[in-house]
Amino acid sequence: MNLVLLTPDDLTGLDRARLTGRRLTHVRGVHRAEVGDRLTVGLLGGRMGRGTVLRVDDQALELEMTLDQEPPPKRPLTLVVALPRPKVLNRLVATATSLGAARIVLLNAWKVEKAYWASPRMRPDNLREQMVLGLEQARDTVLPELRLARLFRPFVEDELPGLAARGTGLYAHPGTGGEPPGVLVVPVTLAIGPEGGWIDAEVHSLERAGLAPVDLGPRILRTETAMAVLVGRLF
Amino acid sequence: MNLVLLTPDDLTGLDRARLTGRRLTHVRGVHRAEVGDRLTVGLLGGRMGRGTVLRVDDQALELEMTLDQEPPPKRPLTLVVALPRPKVLNRLVATATSLGAARIVLLNAWKVEKAYWASPRMRPDNLREQMVLGLEQARDTVLPELRLARLFRPFVEDELPGLAARGTGLYAHPGTGGEPPGVLVVPVTLAIGPEGGWIDAEVHSLERAGLAPVDLGPRILRTETAMAVLVGRLF
Repeated sequence: MNLVLLTPDDLTGLDRARLTGRRLTHVRGVHRAEVGDRLTVGLLGGRMGRGTVLRVDDQALELEMTLDQEPPPKRPLTLVVALPRPKVLNRLVATATSLGAARIVLLNAWKVEKAYWASPRMRPDNLREQMVLGLEQARDTVLPELRLARLFRPFVEDELPGLAARGTGLYAHPGTGGEPPGVLVVPVTLAIGPEGGWIDAEVHSLERAGLAPVDLGPRILRTETAMAVLVGRLF
Repeated sequence: MNLVLLTPDDLTGLDRARLTGRRLTHVRGVHRAEVGDRLTVGLLGGRMGRGTVLRVDDQALELEMTLDQEPPPKRPLTLVVALPRPKVLNRLVATATSLGAARIVLLNAWKVEKAYWASPRMRPDNLREQMVLGLEQARDTVLPELRLARLFRPFVEDELPGLAARGTGLYAHPGTGGEPPGVLVVPVTLAIGPEGGWIDAEVHSLERAGLAPVDLGPRILRTETAMAVLVGRLF
């Protein structure tokens, strides 16, 4: 937690806030915060700054703060990711958020098991919590836009062409030899397939939607790692 | 598991192997392998190829194989990473391996807690298993060289200058504005700090060792994510 993210419910005055629950536990246990310590804080959807600990005990931590900085700008990036296994989902959503993607789309694909969509981790409160963890990691306050696209074809045929036409559209696929463009036109839409990859019919649909292949070489990377490598290459 | 990694102990003949344990469970449970199926296989430290399932039951899976491909070349990259929390260690070692680093150095730093070095996860058999998982993920057969540098100064003062002088030396550090070089001279040595970052004295030591700063921007990324972003930017 590199930033204590506050919600309007935490505010007890214009420049005061009160932390409880998970954030209190973390700030006491890991940061070992004491009265007078200064912490990096931010208001969800708003500004960031510094807070000074006024009081701390088992129940709550009180802060006085100055929020005078804008959060870092989002990357002009839509990450379209095939829905991963529930075990991987939380980390993937938090990582995509920490990388600064403006929009995250979780997409169905042939090799995505139906049961993944029914996982308790897909509940809005869990997905939101993972994005909050990503913001706290990266020192950001603005949630990305999250879309669940439970049907591959309507999303890829009706929405993806418009997204890709606004800038650069790419899909990761091994064995294509595709290189990312030397000069990048933003916004970027980047599609990453499931474990086991896209099937041929999906590749054709992505191509028809205006996406070009990008090949990360002979090594098969986990979705989360591939995402970070591609962000490093593109931005 | 995108490749079934075999050791000499698994071989039952020139072109035959027998899988048991974790790999058997995975290949049966996840790949749902049946007689006649073809799997991507490789021999630890050797060639890769295809194996055909001859027999499979609860006890073992027998394969007939042709190993006729070289593994992908390693990246000319030494990753020097401050030892992370044990909870993060396994994934970090597997990810660094999957990214193809030729050498991984786990380094002490001021903000690395002493207890991390005593974690059961630091046992050689566990570290090796994480590297094997990274190879299975990435479709590689060659273990990276793994070094444990329990003392910061001797490593940074006596060994790092030689590594950096052979090619490009970089250390990740926020707020420096450092850009990676436009033309990369290999081999690359890349140092990534602990949670909370390098302290000033460490930064000075890294600079004296010939490493230049590289800045990933205002977002603070997890070590594992930063590592992948940097590999994407550099290679």
